[in-house]
Amino acid sequence: MMTDLCFLPAVELARMLRKKEISARELLSAHLSQIERINPNVNAIVTLTAERAFKEADRADAVIMGGETLGILHGLPIAHKDLQPTRGIRTTFGSPIYKDFIPDSDSLVVERIKSASAISVGKTNVPEFGAGSQTFNPVFGATRNPYDLNKTCGGSSGGAAAALACGFIPIADGSDMGGSLRNPANFCNVVGLRPSPGRVPSYPAEMGWFTLAVDGPMARTVSDVALLLSALAGPSTLSPISLSDPGSRFSLPLERDFKSTRIAWINLGLPYEREVREAVNSARPVFETLGCIIEESEPDFSDADEIFKAWRAWSFEASLETEYREQKDQLKDTVIWNIEQGKSLTGPYLARVEIKRTRLFHRLREFMERYEFLVLPVSQVLPFDVEKPYPTKINDEQMYTYIDCMKSCYFISAVGNPAISIPGGFSSSGLPVGVQIVGRHQDDWGVLQLAYAFEQAAQHWKRRPASAY
Amino acid sequence: MMTDLCFLPAVELARMLRKKEISARELLSAHLSQIERINPNVNAIVTLTAERAFKEADRADAVIMGGETLGILHGLPIAHKDLQPTRGIRTTFGSPIYKDFIPDSDSLVVERIKSASAISVGKTNVPEFGAGSQTFNPVFGATRNPYDLNKTCGGSSGGAAAALACGFIPIADGSDMGGSLRNPANFCNVVGLRPSPGRVPSYPAEMGWFTLAVDGPMARTVSDVALLLSALAGPSTLSPISLSDPGSRFSLPLERDFKSTRIAWINLGLPYEREVREAVNSARPVFETLGCIIEESEPDFSDADEIFKAWRAWSFEASLETEYREQKDQLKDTVIWNIEQGKSLTGPYLARVEIKRTRLFHRLREFMERYEFLVLPVSQVLPFDVEKPYPTKINDEQMYTYIDCMKSCYFISAVGNPAISIPGGFSSSGLPVGVQIVGRHQDDWGVLQLAYAFEQAAQHWKRRPASAY
Repeated sequence: MMTDLCFLPAVELARMLRKKEISARELLSAHLSQIERINPNVNAIVTLTAERAFKEADRADAVIMGGETLGILHGLPIAHKDLQPTRGIRTTFGSPIYKDFIPDSDSLVVERIKSASAISVGKTNVPEFGAGSQTFNPVFGATRNPYDLNKTCGGSSGGAAAALACGFIPIADGSDMGGSLRNPANFCNVVGLRPSPGRVPSYPAEMGWFTLAVDGPMARTVSDVALLLSALAGPSTLSPISLSDPGSRFSLPLERDFKSTRIAWINLGLPYEREVREAVNSARPVFETLGCIIEESEPDFSDADEIFKAWRAWSFEASLETEYREQKDQLKDTVIWNIEQGKSLTGPYLARVEIKRTRLFHRLREFMERYEFLVLPVSQVLPFDVEKPYPTKINDEQMYTYIDCMKSCYFISAVGNPAISIPGGFSSSGLPVGVQIVGRHQDDWGVLQLAYAFEQAAQHWKRRPASAY
Repeated sequence: MMTDLCFLPAVELARMLRKKEISARELLSAHLSQIERINPNVNAIVTLTAERAFKEADRADAVIMGGETLGILHGLPIAHKDLQPTRGIRTTFGSPIYKDFIPDSDSLVVERIKSASAISVGKTNVPEFGAGSQTFNPVFGATRNPYDLNKTCGGSSGGAAAALACGFIPIADGSDMGGSLRNPANFCNVVGLRPSPGRVPSYPAEMGWFTLAVDGPMARTVSDVALLLSALAGPSTLSPISLSDPGSRFSLPLERDFKSTRIAWINLGLPYEREVREAVNSARPVFETLGCIIEESEPDFSDADEIFKAWRAWSFEASLETEYREQKDQLKDTVIWNIEQGKSLTGPYLARVEIKRTRLFHRLREFMERYEFLVLPVSQVLPFDVEKPYPTKINDEQMYTYIDCMKSCYFISAVGNPAISIPGGFSSSGLPVGVQIVGRHQDDWGVLQLAYAFEQAAQHWKRRPASAY
């Protein structure tokens, strides 16, 4: 019964808390027992703050008993990605350089989650400085895939995705530059939304106007992702690019009629493992039952690869320049490679890239006048060996860098449209495969609505729980 | 009587058109006569499209007679800055390279003005590629200051400002990177608003996410600027950074009580000509009569100079690289200098600059928690000799480049807060001096409201018409 609580949707738990059918303490206890039992197998939560959490839960219960207004996440357990600074709680960024770092203030994401009265149980694992489509680092080791402990959970929000899949928490914050919210959701059979830049304002952010990296919500269902987004979104004076729609915009009913909605079924000319393609294609009839008109038609994503790599390298160099200069021996090779790529960039080259990005934006805008959504795989591969930094081949094609198998995610990041990863099926070996839905510029709401409709229509598909642990 | 029509506010003219007290044709005729009489002296309108304008005016009158819905600028004469592409109408950018260039589509600003049913009489003069705080170029020569024909009208929206001051048009579009909307308004006794980036979406724009350069409204009064802004503002799918508030947000009543509103009276540690400082200081009692609390307190604008120069050079190089390579002999020295500055920039340097820009944003944000507005001079100098590229000295201080006397404008551009230039007084020799009001991040509305209140309170100051011509 305690375990059952751990797999209920957040919206249902929120309702039960409001109606006093359960207390925040009970709910927390159930989740902490689950963490105690299962986390040693998967290593998703790397810093546990049980004592603090109980204090917060008791405070939450007292508020409910006192009849006061509740935050929209009142009493719901959550954990923060270990890239999010948390006041008084160790924040390592997965790097030995920061293994004992304790920030003296919360990030804006953490602050908003606290204001909404969720209860943090700790921090979720990440690859070193978030660089990777896996989740391991020298501080905490690897997080394992709850569906197969020999496989990776994906990354960089890998700890968050695995924690959700294991019932440690019903909601989690993630972040995404090249797929870090989508790829682990995809590998762990949960939901991750990469919102539009500015939808979830980021602070602190060294480069306030930078649009490649975003924060966003993760959960096991689309409704739960929308619930968390309604707490995370909304304008903030702390971010120059924050969007002005209030968070409450995302707490409206998700139902929408998708009859005659045009979807482009795309592959971006990329290689995919056969079983990834098959699983995603098996989702096509579900969209058709919604009445969507699906056409195989490819937008022109020329230059997306170059655009993403240039600005990504630029931002790595910008944020890790000091560590590179002073503690290079404590940085992993892929991070050093990224920084050195950044060092070689010239201003005029970045200008050319930015002009290409603008052209890509307009090509996609025009393409999406005809198609309201794009659907494609999330990652190009199934969850790979947990010891491997990255897959070196897709089918017979060589992958040269650790991000090559993530193009289906990062091509979208290059232009900044909102995108979601939702569970779409399983490989023959039982590994989860996600479906990626991409919406028009800033249409985060449309993406959530289509994902919700898909999820509802796909309910007859047996939702297979993780069981490897 | 015809001339009187040419100096009525746009909001009043719009009312008269709606009530059929005048026709669009009559209104146009009055403005065209004024242009015919006076333009040869000032050279503000460099391409006149009288025939087209009459056709449009007749169409506008037919619509009114037919009882159809009117656009919010219905029948109002306007002219477009010669940096705005206009379909079928010569658009030179003030450069001999483009002296015969006829675009095949309108910019978004022009398109929105057309949709609002304004009537374009032609194009207003600019310095070559908009680079300058004056307005002369090898294609059309110099635009002169209507208050003293030996002085510059400012730039780069200099033709627009002079045209407004001379009663050629009641509203005009301008644009601003380092003060191009504010400095000519200031030199010509009119109003220019530099809106927040994305408030007036720009298209075409080679670099869609670039926030330094913005389009915006100009007029002789604050209400008229707000009227034009209500037509120009509002989201567009054509710009990735367009803000979501609808344009109608700016057609609300401008009245607001400013009792106890805190204003920081600043100078940014810059040199100003004595008479500029004196004129702006004489505006201080006007803000006091509104009940504002004024304190002399300086925000820390360290790095603003470097930030602005770096991104400006970057964008010049980006947009004029081809012209530089192929027709360098047809570019003026200051433009070449800007492009070459851009060529020398490195990626890591731009990253450092962007980190500094973010820190500046936060310092100003914190400062403006205490002060809702900043007030300071617009330019640091009075209108200077029409033949001079730029003033080489302020008091005894040497100015090394053509933008040095514009720091009081471009420091604000560096961080992107909305700012307005409104008439503030005159020098002893009768030259106009503007007052610059800067608002909090994205608070264009607050800026307009304070400017409106100032304008109302200052009405006892004799509004001196331009008379040099």
